[in-house]
Amino acid sequence: MLIDIQEANAKALAAIQAAQPIIKGIDTAINVVPGMKKNLILHAGPPITWAKMSGPLKGAVIGGLIYEGLAANPAEAEKLAASSQIEYSPWHEHDGVGPMAGVATASMPVWIVENKTNGRKTFCTLNEGLGKVLRYGAFSDEVITRLKWIEKTLAPVLKAAIPLAPEINLKNMIAQALQMGDEVHNRNKAATSMLIRELAPAITKTSFSQEEKARVLEFMHSNDHFFLNLSMPAAKAMLQAAEWIEGSTIVTTMCRNGTEFGIRVAGLKDRWFTGPAQMIRGLLFPGFEEKDCNPDIGDSAITETCGLGGFSMAAAPAIVKFVGGTVSDAMNFTRKMYEITDGEAQAFQIPAMDFRGSPTGINILKVCEKNILPQINTGIAHKDAGVGQVGAGLVNPPMKCFEDALEAYVEKYCQN
Amino acid sequence: MLIDIQEANAKALAAIQAAQPIIKGIDTAINVVPGMKKNLILHAGPPITWAKMSGPLKGAVIGGLIYEGLAANPAEAEKLAASSQIEYSPWHEHDGVGPMAGVATASMPVWIVENKTNGRKTFCTLNEGLGKVLRYGAFSDEVITRLKWIEKTLAPVLKAAIPLAPEINLKNMIAQALQMGDEVHNRNKAATSMLIRELAPAITKTSFSQEEKARVLEFMHSNDHFFLNLSMPAAKAMLQAAEWIEGSTIVTTMCRNGTEFGIRVAGLKDRWFTGPAQMIRGLLFPGFEEKDCNPDIGDSAITETCGLGGFSMAAAPAIVKFVGGTVSDAMNFTRKMYEITDGEAQAFQIPAMDFRGSPTGINILKVCEKNILPQINTGIAHKDAGVGQVGAGLVNPPMKCFEDALEAYVEKYCQN
Repeated sequence: MLIDIQEANAKALAAIQAAQPIIKGIDTAINVVPGMKKNLILHAGPPITWAKMSGPLKGAVIGGLIYEGLAANPAEAEKLAASSQIEYSPWHEHDGVGPMAGVATASMPVWIVENKTNGRKTFCTLNEGLGKVLRYGAFSDEVITRLKWIEKTLAPVLKAAIPLAPEINLKNMIAQALQMGDEVHNRNKAATSMLIRELAPAITKTSFSQEEKARVLEFMHSNDHFFLNLSMPAAKAMLQAAEWIEGSTIVTTMCRNGTEFGIRVAGLKDRWFTGPAQMIRGLLFPGFEEKDCNPDIGDSAITETCGLGGFSMAAAPAIVKFVGGTVSDAMNFTRKMYEITDGEAQAFQIPAMDFRGSPTGINILKVCEKNILPQINTGIAHKDAGVGQVGAGLVNPPMKCFEDALEAYVEKYCQN
Repeated sequence: MLIDIQEANAKALAAIQAAQPIIKGIDTAINVVPGMKKNLILHAGPPITWAKMSGPLKGAVIGGLIYEGLAANPAEAEKLAASSQIEYSPWHEHDGVGPMAGVATASMPVWIVENKTNGRKTFCTLNEGLGKVLRYGAFSDEVITRLKWIEKTLAPVLKAAIPLAPEINLKNMIAQALQMGDEVHNRNKAATSMLIRELAPAITKTSFSQEEKARVLEFMHSNDHFFLNLSMPAAKAMLQAAEWIEGSTIVTTMCRNGTEFGIRVAGLKDRWFTGPAQMIRGLLFPGFEEKDCNPDIGDSAITETCGLGGFSMAAAPAIVKFVGGTVSDAMNFTRKMYEITDGEAQAFQIPAMDFRGSPTGINILKVCEKNILPQINTGIAHKDAGVGQVGAGLVNPPMKCFEDALEAYVEKYCQN
């Protein structure tokens, strides 16, 4: 079979560039997420079994089963989780993404993001805030109580507000955030602020009580990462447009389940290429040590896959105070990523680089040829279930994913 | 008389650095602005008579008199403005500041900013938005109607919300905005966003109608410069702390009335040193030419006096799209300003310069010795009354102000 790789990649890149992800609304997962069902747990990263899950993912599954009313306590939940009654599936196989453990169950409300260019939808839960939260593997009462409040108040208020607000184009909002020091993975302060000012008048216009509306605005205000759960499905929507362009070597998925790192490639469809999730080099919160840290976890590397996050760190110099390193490191990460990407984002401009477009469209050929790995910045979860976040830092995928994908590509396209 | 200039300037700089400006509240000018009265018009820049005012300042005075009910139409207002019934005084002589024409009358609501360190207050009107607005010399019905809405709705809602919100420390907010691409003179997008998210829950809690609250949130959201009228009195509050430290050569005021540029110096008290306001080099809105432009106008150079605005352009690379030039120009402006300033702001860090503090404390000795003028970025008003903004760009003060101030300093301190 003869394939023009450059042409296929140009097509993939054009589809990514043409995407226009907007906030479509909010609904309950079981109503809108393809294939969602009561006994299904969606999680971050490539496929994994209960037995192989790391602590934070197990913790989040326990919390998810309690939240869903399928288990009354952690012991019951663990037993159920290990049984054949519960099924597991990666968010990415259901058009969605989940930060960190990324656990979603049937009753959880989700953002619905639509790519106006192709009409397809992507999904993500609502961000819970910092501290003890499900996505970092915590499952105590406060976690469940907050998730219930999200279901009963936050989501309904936002769901009612969205149709009363002007259409929110997430690509435009991310583009502006990049001019305001965010890279929308580990720094979402500007984007969260813009989201709040966009929604605040509409929230005020809903018929909920003054207290509920004020509480919703306070909750969003209290969490500079609130926008992460929109930057992720927005990035997913852009990359989804390149699924599955025949012959393309552009990466459409990079994600981790806390045990393995997985990638998928446009021309290789839904095949996963995995390797061990790596340890993160970064800044730990006081009281924690390296031995407390879980390996890399979460679907949030979808931002890097789309040219944001670690790929756009030059736009977010202040992030080095959170993930470590210096401002010139941040500039260099971005510069280096141009070497393994096929294009520059038209929408995402980096002011400090004279408005050069962010490096977009990771090409597995370039990764393997130049031996340069994608640069990811990320939060660090405690390795034990039930603890939570212990820091943030920098990490790379294992090279094995890219080598295996290249081998599969050669096998598929270059044999005769 | 023997004076230790370095010691005096260190004292001035320490006072500026120690200032903690917070939003204290909102009230009507006549209730809170020292010396305010019904027939007094406050304006930007150094003292000026009606006869010498440029078009936009005259336009704003006309609008102010109509707004105040002292004149029924522009013709009546012009006649009254030229008579001895109306008095004029610079905002800076009443502890306040006004952007562009800077006109304030007795009934206008003003922000009250308090420096918690010394308990002193500064004032500024509320930002009207863009387009046809009083501060750019427009005085049509839509301008007056908006000013009345500001008086009757915006100000009362915000006034009621402020006590319900957490205390807003403007220095902290500006410090964060500098990490988010603002320099808080011609770019206030991040700071405006942060102000809105801080106030939104409190606005929701007030007893005003749903429509009024939504309208207030929409109005703030519609104007990325809304925070300018807080960054200015915050900067004024910081510099006010250096008024009038004996022997100091630090500049406490830089401002323009559209005809003259004026400065004041800590050790020379309330004496004005003036020179002709300069023309601005910048980007004009479509349909306008250089001959339409008024010379430099407004008290907003208080931001530069405080190390923000043009002095912090390295923090706001995206601003070059508004005022012209390149990103490296922006970096160079900031670098150059270290040569004429005595210190680096502890609070205001510039990420792109490895978090170096912004250049603060303009020293007239350095300006004169090195022949380097302060760098200001600014809006450009049409030269005729009633038109409005025509662009934005870059400008410097006339060297004469600094030379005259130095001469006066020598006369006061160095004779025996």
